[in-house]
Formats: sequence, structure tokens, C-alpha cells
Amino acid sequence: MALIHYPVVNKNGETIISAITNLDIHDISRAAMTYGVKSFYVVTPLLDQQELAKKIIDHWQSGFGAQYNPIRKQALSLVKIESSLDEVINSIAENEKEIPSTIVTCAKEKTKNIGYKDMRKMLENGKPHLLLFGTGWGLSEDFFNNANYVLEPIKGNTEYNHLSVRSAAAIIFDRLMF
Amino acid sequence: MALIHYPVVNKNGETIISAITNLDIHDISRAAMTYGVKSFYVVTPLLDQQELAKKIIDHWQSGFGAQYNPIRKQALSLVKIESSLDEVINSIAENEKEIPSTIVTCAKEKTKNIGYKDMRKMLENGKPHLLLFGTGWGLSEDFFNNANYVLEPIKGNTEYNHLSVRSAAAIIFDRLMF
Repeated sequence: MALIHYPVVNKNGETIISAITNLDIHDISRAAMTYGVKSFYVVTPLLDQQELAKKIIDHWQSGFGAQYNPIRKQALSLVKIESSLDEVINSIAENEKEIPSTIVTCAKEKTKNIGYKDMRKMLENGKPHLLLFGTGWGLSEDFFNNANYVLEPIKGNTEYNHLSVRSAAAIIFDRLMF
Repeated sequence: MALIHYPVVNKNGETIISAITNLDIHDISRAAMTYGVKSFYVVTPLLDQQELAKKIIDHWQSGFGAQYNPIRKQALSLVKIESSLDEVINSIAENEKEIPSTIVTCAKEKTKNIGYKDMRKMLENGKPHLLLFGTGWGLSEDFFNNANYVLEPIKGNTEYNHLSVRSAAAIIFDRLMF
């Protein structure tokens, strides 16, 4: 899976680079570890933001945090930092000897939607799959045009559908992989 | 549901009062709103921590945040602050004219465990139910002895089961109420 910080949109629909959020990295790496996700790519083109992500990870990987809380160390071993989606795809293609299918997540209905049941089945084909999550107010339109699939949005049992990306990732892993 | 900050245990199993975490309030209120949870009680006996929680909520309810992001305002309207579990139970009993059943969540197997399917069915009986979540390293033993039910722990498809309380709450709502 990849957590994308650019290009994403802000509340006015403008394309922005969003800032790295400490708890995104912690919560999502722990959920990814729980559900057997192979790698968690944090994607931002900004070098200082890449440095920040690296610092957070290093603190818990080899700094004081590694001794204090080995559980976090284990989860954060899944995290890799890349500059762009293309780099993520290249990295997976190199490791898996195959280009991954891309599946975009989104809080809104899209025409290309695939349901959770079909997606679960597809994940069993042994091929690499890359699940994309947006930060800010969501991924920019390009992702939806270029992705192989768009995952059905999470709906609870109300009209309200504004989960944090941390909550959405946890629920999606649970629906797809448990 | 209630998010308990005392009595909870730390990593050495000692009973502590944990600190309020800003993103617990935001993430869990948004997930609670999505899945139709009636109230989200934040429980701490410390007055300064109650003040902190109140400040966070007020900022998004009536301060700058309310205009900037009405979506958060709506979710945070579910949040109530109480000093103890007894106060939460009294508040629910007053609103619902009936004492709620208590269901404790936990990352470990307990003898009293109830599964998700049975719990879902039980929620349909129209009576009030109170789901309890711990912070820190989890709820103290007393909760398990006194609760009516202990919900089966979330297991992914690995041995790792160290989700954040934010992720766990999102997954549990999805399993019980979607």
C-alpha cells in the first residue's frame, strides 16, 4: 500500500502537497502489520518531509524508541519512503518481478468501482497489488483515471462518510484481508 | 461508547491515568458518527485533562474550526466528557431510562469472550449498550470482572495484534454495525 501526499486536493479542490502526519505512519504501519500488508510506502516529493518521515521511523527503529517499544519497531519496518507513485511501482516491480495492479481508495462513488468481495478474490491470484490512499481531502483526479481499479467507498450505516485515512485504512484491511 | 483514561495499565502492567490524545477524539468521533454510535464518552478523572478535551471540542464546535471544517463539528457533537465509568452509566441510564449492558474490548483472549456475530444480534434488541475502549496498554483487570461481556479480540491474518485504539474502534464499529 502507499499513502500519497502529492498530488492530493485540499478542501477547495486545489492540488497541494500535504504534510506528513506522525500518527498516520504509526497507526497505518500497525494495521498493515496486523493484516499482512507487505510494504507501506509513504510518498512525498519534498525532501524535508522525507527527512521527517525518516526521523520518525529511525527513532523507533534504532533510537530510544526501539528499546522502549519493540512492537512499534516491528510495524515500522514495513515503511519505505518514495518520491512518487512511479517510484513505488518501480520498487514493487523490482521486488516482485511484475508490475502491480493499482487500486485507488476513495470516500466517493466512482464509475470504475470494484466491491470488497471481488477485490478479496482478486488478491488471491498471487500477483502484486498496490492499494493507494490519499491524505488531505483525497487523491487528485489523475489517480482515478490511471488506476486499474477504484475500491468501493466505505459506508457505515449513516449518511456521514468522513473517516480519517487512518480509520479507513484499518477498515479496508479488515474487509479485504481478514 | 466510552474511551477510558483511568484506570488503565502501562507497559509494565501498573495502573495509571493516561493522557488525552487529540487524534483519539477526532478519529473516533468521525468513526462513531459514520456508524451511528449515539454518544462518545471521553473518561478521565483529571480536571486539567477534562479541560483539554473540552478545548479541543470547543475549537471545532464554536471556534475557528467550526467554520473551517463543519464536518468535524458534526462528529464532535457526539463527544461528552465524564470523570468515571459510573458517571457514564448514570448518564446513559438517565437518557435511555435503562442501565446499559457493558461490553469491554481487549486485544487478548478472555474467558467471557463474545463473538462479533452474537454481539451484532444482541445490539438489535433495542436496549442500551456501552462499548468500552482502553487507552495506554489497555483497561485494568477490574473492567473485565465487572463487564457484562468481553468482545472477541480483533485478529488480522498474522500473529501481530497491536492496533492503535483508533484503528481498533474503527474496525469494531465496521464489524458490529455495518
